[in-house]
Amino acid sequence: MNALWLQDETLSLRDIPIPRNADEALVRVRLSGICGTDLELARGYYPYTGVIGHEFVGEVVESPDPKWIGQRVVGEINVNCGVCETCAAGRPTHCPSRTVLGITGRDGAHAEYVSLPLANLHRVPDSVSDEAAVFTEPVAAAAEILEQVAMGPGDRVLLVGAGRLGQLIAQVLATTGAELCVVARHESQRTLLASRGITAITETDVMPRSWDIVVEATGSPSGFDLALSAVRPRGTFVLKSTYAGDITLNLSPVVVDEITIVGSRCGPFARALELLASGAVDPTILIGERCPLSRAIEAMEAAARPGAMKVLLDPSVGR
Amino acid sequence: MNALWLQDETLSLRDIPIPRNADEALVRVRLSGICGTDLELARGYYPYTGVIGHEFVGEVVESPDPKWIGQRVVGEINVNCGVCETCAAGRPTHCPSRTVLGITGRDGAHAEYVSLPLANLHRVPDSVSDEAAVFTEPVAAAAEILEQVAMGPGDRVLLVGAGRLGQLIAQVLATTGAELCVVARHESQRTLLASRGITAITETDVMPRSWDIVVEATGSPSGFDLALSAVRPRGTFVLKSTYAGDITLNLSPVVVDEITIVGSRCGPFARALELLASGAVDPTILIGERCPLSRAIEAMEAAARPGAMKVLLDPSVGR
Repeated sequence: MNALWLQDETLSLRDIPIPRNADEALVRVRLSGICGTDLELARGYYPYTGVIGHEFVGEVVESPDPKWIGQRVVGEINVNCGVCETCAAGRPTHCPSRTVLGITGRDGAHAEYVSLPLANLHRVPDSVSDEAAVFTEPVAAAAEILEQVAMGPGDRVLLVGAGRLGQLIAQVLATTGAELCVVARHESQRTLLASRGITAITETDVMPRSWDIVVEATGSPSGFDLALSAVRPRGTFVLKSTYAGDITLNLSPVVVDEITIVGSRCGPFARALELLASGAVDPTILIGERCPLSRAIEAMEAAARPGAMKVLLDPSVGR
Repeated sequence: MNALWLQDETLSLRDIPIPRNADEALVRVRLSGICGTDLELARGYYPYTGVIGHEFVGEVVESPDPKWIGQRVVGEINVNCGVCETCAAGRPTHCPSRTVLGITGRDGAHAEYVSLPLANLHRVPDSVSDEAAVFTEPVAAAAEILEQVAMGPGDRVLLVGAGRLGQLIAQVLATTGAELCVVARHESQRTLLASRGITAITETDVMPRSWDIVVEATGSPSGFDLALSAVRPRGTFVLKSTYAGDITLNLSPVVVDEITIVGSRCGPFARALELLASGAVDPTILIGERCPLSRAIEAMEAAARPGAMKVLLDPSVGR
């Protein structure tokens, strides 16, 4: 099958064997989405060799349990051992011996087929299109914030960053009824937010120490500094993006103002699918290009351009 | 009256007017304690001119409400406005226009007399000696952790740092029944912990990513790094000390492991007095020297020596 292969910070399209595993489902990929993490892997921020890609929607074609065959599915990306202390404590996404689809020790979804345990699969409701379902993983990551931090009407919430992940976070946070403002640098970002009725502001509009909850989704040190400065005393600061390398910061305000910082990563697929099925979150407005898998390398370049919208890969073209 | 005055990073003993304020209580200081913050102020880490000192026990000698006269009291250090949004929201210790005893805009307690609003005073139970009561403020700061983070039997708790504040935190955390270990560098620190039945370990005993809750009380970047590395995925990291200047750190583990960082500062005096009255916390084992106020400058030097125990100032000598 065709797959987008990463090795030594170099991408290539390869013809590799279909990843059959008797204990897992074989899923024919219908669409996959290029994520910021894919770009970081390609830049060598984390060591990885194999097929990249972890956002996908597909159809089960082989399965140890035949009732899954023919189902349209999305898949959780962490494959855990199920027996260690961390798994037993109910934190399977943090299993120390986990593999992670297209990120750690497991070939990913920018390919014609992908293999995952049945426990990782979620059936996609008929009302959710492939173009929406392919966003389930990042919508779940956005919804993780709601699992960690209570928010609702009356809470002043600031989101810093309105890129691809930021737009999804904005839509998810807006469902809570909180007073949400989003720091958006670019007109195109503000237009997308406005189309969902979400208030966009600029960096200079951010009053320091004024927001109950601040979510950082830029992944840049300047975004981090702006976001931290905006948290009110005893407020909550959610770190939703990773940072390449070290950050230098003065931690005294965190202590003096008794700020809580919450790191936030993967989230609940079931809740994400509910948000997509109800239409409360519509990620399809974020789609920029849709490319055949055969043009995946150009697609990665397109996704890396500043201000790029979501780029989807379609392995069915020319199959 | 005599007072320990700080100006331009220089300490001096001065004869200044007794701080009479018709709206506040005048307290004759019986004992005051030298805190790490006093040492940081003297080093110029924060700008401040005036009498330093914020840990004290004293006796009310003048009061707008006569029923306080003669009472033995300790005093909360933050004096808030009571009318702003932050005060109205129930966060008076974070009032943006607050003064802080001996730290910000209000003369402190290394003096013969100190002035505070009645609302800040707490009567000291008869069973609590002056030598214990003078620790109420730092015991309250330690007890703030329990207001912020739930812990109890079955929780693995690591405290990094066994200096003066660390010892108090250790005693307070031990009251929860959690499985507590304390990283202590010096034999004298380990002896103090052992006298309270608390387990001391060394830095090399700290297994990475293993502790449910980690409390940092060293105030040093190396202590911060050790403490952060010890937190398990989805664990909690309590920042109990401030850091002079910037810290450089890689925040990716905070996001990937979904760690919660909690900044922690001033705490509940009532709970601290209960801990002292019950004997659950005994800070008197930490007392090193007791000096007359007239020798306050040498006392500050003694408190600044590595491994120094608590130094108390007694303004009654030679009064």
